[in-house]
Amino acid sequence: MISLKDCSEEFVKFANRLADTAGEIHRRHFGKTLEVEIKPDGSPVTPVDRETERVLRKLIEQTYPDHGITGEEYPPVQEDAEFVWVLDPLDGTKSFLAGIPTFGVLIALVHEGRFVLGAVDQPILRDRWIGADGHGTTRNGTPARTRSCVSLAEAVLCVAGPDTRTEPYDDQIAKVRRAARWVRYGAGCYGYGLLASGFVDLLVDASLHNHDFGPLEPIVRNAGGVATDWDGRALSMDSSGDIIAAGDARLIEQVRAHLER
Amino acid sequence: MISLKDCSEEFVKFANRLADTAGEIHRRHFGKTLEVEIKPDGSPVTPVDRETERVLRKLIEQTYPDHGITGEEYPPVQEDAEFVWVLDPLDGTKSFLAGIPTFGVLIALVHEGRFVLGAVDQPILRDRWIGADGHGTTRNGTPARTRSCVSLAEAVLCVAGPDTRTEPYDDQIAKVRRAARWVRYGAGCYGYGLLASGFVDLLVDASLHNHDFGPLEPIVRNAGGVATDWDGRALSMDSSGDIIAAGDARLIEQVRAHLER
Repeated sequence: MISLKDCSEEFVKFANRLADTAGEIHRRHFGKTLEVEIKPDGSPVTPVDRETERVLRKLIEQTYPDHGITGEEYPPVQEDAEFVWVLDPLDGTKSFLAGIPTFGVLIALVHEGRFVLGAVDQPILRDRWIGADGHGTTRNGTPARTRSCVSLAEAVLCVAGPDTRTEPYDDQIAKVRRAARWVRYGAGCYGYGLLASGFVDLLVDASLHNHDFGPLEPIVRNAGGVATDWDGRALSMDSSGDIIAAGDARLIEQVRAHLER
Repeated sequence: MISLKDCSEEFVKFANRLADTAGEIHRRHFGKTLEVEIKPDGSPVTPVDRETERVLRKLIEQTYPDHGITGEEYPPVQEDAEFVWVLDPLDGTKSFLAGIPTFGVLIALVHEGRFVLGAVDQPILRDRWIGADGHGTTRNGTPARTRSCVSLAEAVLCVAGPDTRTEPYDDQIAKVRRAARWVRYGAGCYGYGLLASGFVDLLVDASLHNHDFGPLEPIVRNAGGVATDWDGRALSMDSSGDIIAAGDARLIEQVRAHLER
């Protein structure tokens, strides 16, 4: 077996191929009228979400038949494999439907339980971030770095706006929001890249799935930042989904002080 | 004097020229590190806001020396003129700074107190809506129309996320939000266009300035929708800034029922 470090560039190339494929599908359907189905959790799903995940799964199965796959729309396969690909085929479906280009495909690679690669692609802006161990984080091929931010009072924060998913955490998130410099809402997965590139300082979210927060972790870590759960623990496939991501690690404890339950 | 209808195309051409000029300035500075000053109301202002407004004012003064101008960053001139241009040189300064392309220039033309032309331009996406009486609303030159939506329960709503500006209205806005199909946050002035093009159904906001809501009114009205204040009255330069804009007029009363104070 080759070590992970040796094949990292190969996986980065393959992640680019997955993102190219997803982006083509997204662009083909963006701005068109789509059938919308409401899932049991109240979130919408479209034929675009499902087509994208089916096509990406097929590419993975053809290229890495030994790898596992988990994704938002279909049941997992080979979850116990050494390498597992984690897919959110269309993060931000509501934004996609509303014509707002902050949606994207999210791709992560897990090696023995650890996130080692993450990718986010915004296909209308043709903006892509990939972070991978042994590779760093790049934005469209150019190295991306988080910015320094010592104090929460100076931090620009990205959060989701109030909805049923985050409602149980509204009071805690409001404390962080009021302590921050200012807040941007609705950046969605595009905010992962903006954090990696030092345009914003902080992301706080709650009740995310591992296909949402998984790609964030290697993108931010390999750009110089850190992503943890609300208890300050490293993120894994089994994390709660209550996450903090900071471009400057010194922010984590300041945020956690406001999130105490 | 020529009637407004006769010169509407001339004003549309001129609004395009103003938007081209603003967009060039925005693109030149987007993604760069900028000096940020905090205004007394807590909102940030940059040299880009000021440069844009200075350049647009100069163009107006050269082209229409008899017209008045009001704008966000400088004192009004000739406010009692028959025609007054209303400028927000960079709506969404926080998004501009955060690298999120939902900011834009906002331009309105007021004739004897009535909004007769509105323009919003997103220069990174190169997306522009202009609505003018006798001209209709266009997106990049192609006619834009709002979509039909009979019931608030079916409506996609754009709102600002919680902050100090809207905090006094949080409970009322939350009622509309919970009654709507779903919500998008942070679309900013880009949401004006998405409403005009039938991607979203409803905008609700509070405590806006007339340079914020002025351009919205002719863009939405000339696309088949309607914008009013929270009491259902037509918008004017003196409106409160608590606004509802709907792609389908049948939504207005349903929203107002939730906004009662």
